Amino acid sequence: MRAVEAAGAEALLVTHGPDVRYLSGFTGSSGAVAMVGGRSALFTDGRYTTQAKAEAEGVRVVIDKRAPAVQAVEWMAAAGVTRCAFDAGQTTVAAMETMKKALPAGVRRSFFVAGSGLVARLREVKDEDEIARMKRAAELGCRMFEAVLEFVVPGATEVEVAAELEYRARMGGAEAMSFETIVASGERSALPHGRATGAKLPKRGFVTMDFGVVVDGYCSDMTRTVHLGRATDEAWDVYHSVLEAQEAAVAAIAPGVRCGEVDEAARAVLRRAGLEKEFSHSTGHGVGLEIHEGPRIAAKQEQVLKQGMVITVEPGAYLATRTAVGGGKALGGTKRSGGAFGVRIEDMVLVTEGGGEVLTSASPKVWMEL
Amino acid sequence: MRAVEAAGAEALLVTHGPDVRYLSGFTGSSGAVAMVGGRSALFTDGRYTTQAKAEAEGVRVVIDKRAPAVQAVEWMAAAGVTRCAFDAGQTTVAAMETMKKALPAGVRRSFFVAGSGLVARLREVKDEDEIARMKRAAELGCRMFEAVLEFVVPGATEVEVAAELEYRARMGGAEAMSFETIVASGERSALPHGRATGAKLPKRGFVTMDFGVVVDGYCSDMTRTVHLGRATDEAWDVYHSVLEAQEAAVAAIAPGVRCGEVDEAARAVLRRAGLEKEFSHSTGHGVGLEIHEGPRIAAKQEQVLKQGMVITVEPGAYLATRTAVGGGKALGGTKRSGGAFGVRIEDMVLVTEGGGEVLTSASPKVWMEL
Repeated sequence: MRAVEAAGAEALLVTHGPDVRYLSGFTGSSGAVAMVGGRSALFTDGRYTTQAKAEAEGVRVVIDKRAPAVQAVEWMAAAGVTRCAFDAGQTTVAAMETMKKALPAGVRRSFFVAGSGLVARLREVKDEDEIARMKRAAELGCRMFEAVLEFVVPGATEVEVAAELEYRARMGGAEAMSFETIVASGERSALPHGRATGAKLPKRGFVTMDFGVVVDGYCSDMTRTVHLGRATDEAWDVYHSVLEAQEAAVAAIAPGVRCGEVDEAARAVLRRAGLEKEFSHSTGHGVGLEIHEGPRIAAKQEQVLKQGMVITVEPGAYLATRTAVGGGKALGGTKRSGGAFGVRIEDMVLVTEGGGEVLTSASPKVWMEL
Repeated sequence: MRAVEAAGAEALLVTHGPDVRYLSGFTGSSGAVAMVGGRSALFTDGRYTTQAKAEAEGVRVVIDKRAPAVQAVEWMAAAGVTRCAFDAGQTTVAAMETMKKALPAGVRRSFFVAGSGLVARLREVKDEDEIARMKRAAELGCRMFEAVLEFVVPGATEVEVAAELEYRARMGGAEAMSFETIVASGERSALPHGRATGAKLPKRGFVTMDFGVVVDGYCSDMTRTVHLGRATDEAWDVYHSVLEAQEAAVAAIAPGVRCGEVDEAARAVLRRAGLEKEFSHSTGHGVGLEIHEGPRIAAKQEQVLKQGMVITVEPGAYLATRTAVGGGKALGGTKRSGGAFGVRIEDMVLVTEGGGEVLTSASPKVWMEL
């Protein structure tokens, strides 16, 4: 609540689902949490009476037909609140209008104080229970990857590989995939976000698999890239540059380190390899109840890592189709003609007192020619 | 644009992903469409240069580093727009602040005119191409259901059934499931939204499967309920009351009919069977690029069906645990003791000139004791 007070408010309204779950334990699709001083209450509707009382232990549960946010706002106004912080990035203009109408005219104009990510910031640091869930999610991801390798063969389609991964996710206890599974093969591996398609895996070329599962509400996220058939020297070189960059970034992780430093650790390796431009995205992001959370692991980010944060480390290099006309700087002047391809390698990493603990270490990152 | 003009605006800003896709064809995660008079433009960023130009045929594509909505607003202001409609239900307070800051001070205060569902209304009526995609999605759902029946056996878990369904979805060409698969067995069938869990299917009892796939961007949605083992008379009666209600609602569908009439057709059957309270949700909803679209098929809805709409018809009855202490009105006084159970039956229905055309007719709705 210190952040709330710093924003000039005496109460906090939370309506974003993952934030509501984080504060109250309630997982239903419609709920709001109000926090006033030391008190808090969860508002939802009659569909969730039993579930809310079971899930939101130690939190007062209020059931009513009206929209949860409206209930919450009226409850706060009745409790004498005159200034309430809310998340402007998670509240629509229409929802704000509805909530304002529920307030007494006297306080309406100045009631809401826009904040941003007040609960999201709390969620960045995971407690022991959250870390245990994330480890289970990460370990399931690794088991899925190992099991699916036998299906990564020339002629199989990308969606078949995705289907096998997702089947094993379900059978292993996942509630859902944490995002749309990426299987990008051959020239499609040059796409950073190549959703699985009907494309057939090539006899020779990379296959990038980027996927995650949800276990007990928490997301995993990992990427492995393997090669089908005998690789060119260039492909081998790019893979090992990305691997070196990935490992350098993991090694840079420790409490007190700035996120920008972790990004730079990866970027410096790829810069030396002549692949700076080919690494066209940031190095990683926090993960938890949502697949994308804070902190951002990107260039110049000043935010400092804290013990208990869980972040991804996922540098990549994506090479478009090139012609034989020389002069390219990539890979120390060895750039040659060839089709497009790409490589990305990603782990989930827990920030511990002693440094980064890789949660997806069960799946090897070694060069694989299948 | 008539709705835009009626709202007192001369332009429309669209930022909600499915609306952007509907108007421009663009499927990327970050885009905005601006419509001014007869002109329109799609704004996105450098990640999507190639994709946007390929997908947004006949639409002007503008690429820039800044947020698409900010680009769009500046473009409109430069074109002399002073009043722009936007969807207040799809725009956050934070996004609105950012857009206002991008405007010249002179027009900032009165530039935005809140609208709601301006594009959503257009999307309710599907054209031939959309209907063809939805038929393919619906047919894939039916094939998945038929294939998965062999796994619906006592002792299998709900997630195993979900896994088999989802595997077949992927192998059949689905891009994704259109929502989290529901497999609710035994007493869990009494939950209208029982996500698949590790619960084992019982020797005797209902299994409700509610699922859908996304094919070429369009969602399917269907529910079938089957019975494992020999059913009680009560279970048989409830199933057939729900089936009769479902078929009555489908039969009520025609252009010009009010949505509330379709709902009432189902509700009247269940009322006569003493199951009115046990039918605790609305009868259906529109479906398309999103799993839940307009129109709402619910009590007292005055909206009128139009040719080309695609709606779900999904009445259900959910009976909590009952004791032998008599007096219950359900099923004409035959209410007895028993565990909780529930039944839901759902089809996707296209509104045609001649009435409702069931798109999920390939899967039988007949009583099945497996």
